[in-house]
Amino acid sequence: MTAHRLAQLYRDSLALATDLYQLTMACAYWKAGLAEHEAVFHLVFRKLPFGGGFCVACGLATVCDLLGGLRFSQDDLSYLAGLTAPDGSRLFEPEFLDYLRRLEFAVDVDGLPEGTPVFPQEPLVRVQGPLAACQILETPLLTILNFQTLVATKAARTWLAAEGQPILEFGLRRAQGLDGGVSASRAAYVGGCAATSNVLAGKLFDIPVRGTHAHSWVMCFDEEQEAFQTYAAAMPHNCVLLVDTYDTLRGVQRAADVGTQLETRGYRLSAIRLDSGDLATLSRAARRILDDAGLQATQILASGDLDEHLIAELKRRGAPIDTWGVGTRLATAYDQPALGGVYKLAALRAPGGVWQQRVKISDDPVKSTIPGIQQVRRIRRGGIPLCDVLWNTLDAPPATSDVPHAAPGRQPHAAAGLQPHAVGAVAPHAAPRSQPEAGGPAAMVDLHNPQQPLPVPPGEAQDLLVPVFRRGNLVYEPPPARVARQQTLRELERLPAGVKQLANAERYPVYLDQRLYELRERLRRMHQGEGSA
Amino acid sequence: MTAHRLAQLYRDSLALATDLYQLTMACAYWKAGLAEHEAVFHLVFRKLPFGGGFCVACGLATVCDLLGGLRFSQDDLSYLAGLTAPDGSRLFEPEFLDYLRRLEFAVDVDGLPEGTPVFPQEPLVRVQGPLAACQILETPLLTILNFQTLVATKAARTWLAAEGQPILEFGLRRAQGLDGGVSASRAAYVGGCAATSNVLAGKLFDIPVRGTHAHSWVMCFDEEQEAFQTYAAAMPHNCVLLVDTYDTLRGVQRAADVGTQLETRGYRLSAIRLDSGDLATLSRAARRILDDAGLQATQILASGDLDEHLIAELKRRGAPIDTWGVGTRLATAYDQPALGGVYKLAALRAPGGVWQQRVKISDDPVKSTIPGIQQVRRIRRGGIPLCDVLWNTLDAPPATSDVPHAAPGRQPHAAAGLQPHAVGAVAPHAAPRSQPEAGGPAAMVDLHNPQQPLPVPPGEAQDLLVPVFRRGNLVYEPPPARVARQQTLRELERLPAGVKQLANAERYPVYLDQRLYELRERLRRMHQGEGSA
Repeated sequence: MTAHRLAQLYRDSLALATDLYQLTMACAYWKAGLAEHEAVFHLVFRKLPFGGGFCVACGLATVCDLLGGLRFSQDDLSYLAGLTAPDGSRLFEPEFLDYLRRLEFAVDVDGLPEGTPVFPQEPLVRVQGPLAACQILETPLLTILNFQTLVATKAARTWLAAEGQPILEFGLRRAQGLDGGVSASRAAYVGGCAATSNVLAGKLFDIPVRGTHAHSWVMCFDEEQEAFQTYAAAMPHNCVLLVDTYDTLRGVQRAADVGTQLETRGYRLSAIRLDSGDLATLSRAARRILDDAGLQATQILASGDLDEHLIAELKRRGAPIDTWGVGTRLATAYDQPALGGVYKLAALRAPGGVWQQRVKISDDPVKSTIPGIQQVRRIRRGGIPLCDVLWNTLDAPPATSDVPHAAPGRQPHAAAGLQPHAVGAVAPHAAPRSQPEAGGPAAMVDLHNPQQPLPVPPGEAQDLLVPVFRRGNLVYEPPPARVARQQTLRELERLPAGVKQLANAERYPVYLDQRLYELRERLRRMHQGEGSA
Repeated sequence: MTAHRLAQLYRDSLALATDLYQLTMACAYWKAGLAEHEAVFHLVFRKLPFGGGFCVACGLATVCDLLGGLRFSQDDLSYLAGLTAPDGSRLFEPEFLDYLRRLEFAVDVDGLPEGTPVFPQEPLVRVQGPLAACQILETPLLTILNFQTLVATKAARTWLAAEGQPILEFGLRRAQGLDGGVSASRAAYVGGCAATSNVLAGKLFDIPVRGTHAHSWVMCFDEEQEAFQTYAAAMPHNCVLLVDTYDTLRGVQRAADVGTQLETRGYRLSAIRLDSGDLATLSRAARRILDDAGLQATQILASGDLDEHLIAELKRRGAPIDTWGVGTRLATAYDQPALGGVYKLAALRAPGGVWQQRVKISDDPVKSTIPGIQQVRRIRRGGIPLCDVLWNTLDAPPATSDVPHAAPGRQPHAAAGLQPHAVGAVAPHAAPRSQPEAGGPAAMVDLHNPQQPLPVPPGEAQDLLVPVFRRGNLVYEPPPARVARQQTLRELERLPAGVKQLANAERYPVYLDQRLYELRERLRRMHQGEGSA
């Protein structure tokens, strides 16, 4: 099943899942004759979460579900017609609502495939198309990509901490609404979790589901032993016993007795679950009890406010835990519950006109935005990523040895000649090549250390943004969550060890193509003049 | 409109929005002949979030939407039929799936009306009905009530910090999925926000929507002045100008120029918006610029990573800010993104049998659960809450002066005679009275200081849990979000000042009826025996 039911369900009013200011801006664009000007926006984050060294891109499949066929319904338009300004006047004129009725969101979207490691300043998606349509999409794109990328990243960190042991995601009860929970379960799986407790997410995205029983099962019986025996009798194929309802080690002994009985019936006690207390000490004691009972094959599952840091500590302490249940701290990204992704205008042009490239400046040079129509080139050697280079597809591609995959594809909106009087005007888009452009610029600049331009290193080069929508039509088939998860794990293996550290991670180098850097500096100087004029 | 569209949309697969272990437990209950035993669960949290002194109950309206008519669809059952245990065998037998097909969730739910201040150990909802049905509902109830109560509480704290100035909620782009964002916007409004930017939430729940323009509007023009003029021309009735795209105070001056032009056309510049920098210094300078231009009526709206603590600090520093835009930190409850609500079995009985009351024990006496079929009695004097008393509706109500509202109503499942041999067996349910029961016990115990039983103080007494579902039928009409918000603000005014402090808040006293306390101690001692036996 690739039809994502939630997406279908949402579609009716999805166009309203945006901030009001996107609609007031769209209205003002429309009145000012700008609504159909062609715009380019990039969705980027500026700072890595959790003190780590990477993010895992996630959410593109949901973007595909939600954007395809997006329209304002009559019901939505009636709602908007009733909105008023503070002075009681109508907020939107009927003519603008008629514009919205006809709006088809005929945009181009290029995005990072799910499971791709991504770093600050790199677009998770690039959106190109009519200004008003691009603007309205800002909020849903941010909602989807900010959160799913955050949770996939948290899951990947947890997977690294568990050193390949399976992680079960149990977070639905602490998630932000049911769909928040569904999104979290999906992203956690893409990020490396082995399974979820969330049955709806399991059904929608074909994610393995896992679970056995809770304290309330044990509390239904007068005695824990009876509770365990009854559960084992009812579920002999899927028997994980939660042992901490009363006294944990007494519970383990009772579970071991049940495990021995199961063996005589030809079944096996799959695992015990520890959910509280000092998990290192308890797991060692539990292991001994199980081993003494001849239950070497019975695993120990641990849960209870776990995250990557606690898992890493328990592993350092040698806790004989086999499987990790992670809930609240994963599904809410507890220690940093938001990725600060932003969606910024980078280029604009009138019909038949030339590209006006744009920046928003900040006192912090790293926080100023990057103009152009960007692509991310990753340079690898032996599969290991060396560095990334952000380049402007309005320039020729930087000279690197080869670009085997995911060349940016046609730029259907790109055209128009050079008009040297225009602000930031540049040469028309040069179609990307699968071979490096002879004589193309090959220097790159580190934003954190701009004094020293460097040559683009030789290696296998790949442009990461792939075409997803063209004029509103889906041209990409997002891989199922299972395949995206494999992609995550393959890429995590290849990342340099320093970048994967849970804390104090090394900075993975992201450069700007020198021409893009110089354009940005030119635009920044111009606007600093504007600011202080 | 009271039909909540999202709820309708979700309903198709809603019964699967639960943890797998609820279904494996339901299956094991069914096999063990327990599925139709009558159970009582309470959903409580144990610890107040954000270092504060109260929570605001929220989410009951969503519970009403989601539970009404809940069933497993054929499609859901087909999915469950395909699930396998670790050994490859079928997880659920066809006979159990047939049980699920017939399951009608014929439960009783009693809940705290939205906008009610609520404290640790007090049930947000009490669920009574067939054990398997109650168990499956655990996860969606926790998901809904944990998150909405958390965000409503955060919003109430923000409202307190802003001392009655309007707060606009802007959090959709950082929320957890679109429905996470819709839930957050609804809860933020119930908690005291004046409006949201989230148009979908505005439509679904009749919440005022607000918003004007973003940086990208300004970036579409070569000059900020032109951007402001064009926006003001397009939206003269709803003109709030964002002034920090380039240089904030230059931006304010340009906005003031546009404001002066608007006045000559008979309009008014509603506000300027500051979104970065030191908001205290900038707002003072901006106020001077606006006043010097004769724009005393133009307000200052501030945004940018605000929360209750920053707002309180800006107010202490005398920042002349009129309206507060709060996004990420509210919609994600950034400093504590999960409320640790749990859902615990408190009583159980076989058909025709007596109630077996239940506790889960913990080394920390406060963390042990509370048995019975609970009700929360709030004692007020002159409207001001003095204390709450948790009492067991299986006992007679505690003697307090009057119970004017929300008596617990009929207990349709309650019946059956005293059978003294049973564990925790008690007298059959005494129907609640609107008048205090003569001679009813009137002592209460503080869990934090159990040595000193106290008399229940005289005052106006109200039992807070109201009947919401009876045997699966909705018997409650949840007030619209606007009315729930009024309830929040009225109750916040009445709360003691110490309880409302943002940090180091006073503990609001919550007592146990002495009989309930003694029952709990009896059951705890029994299970400690079980634990150490």
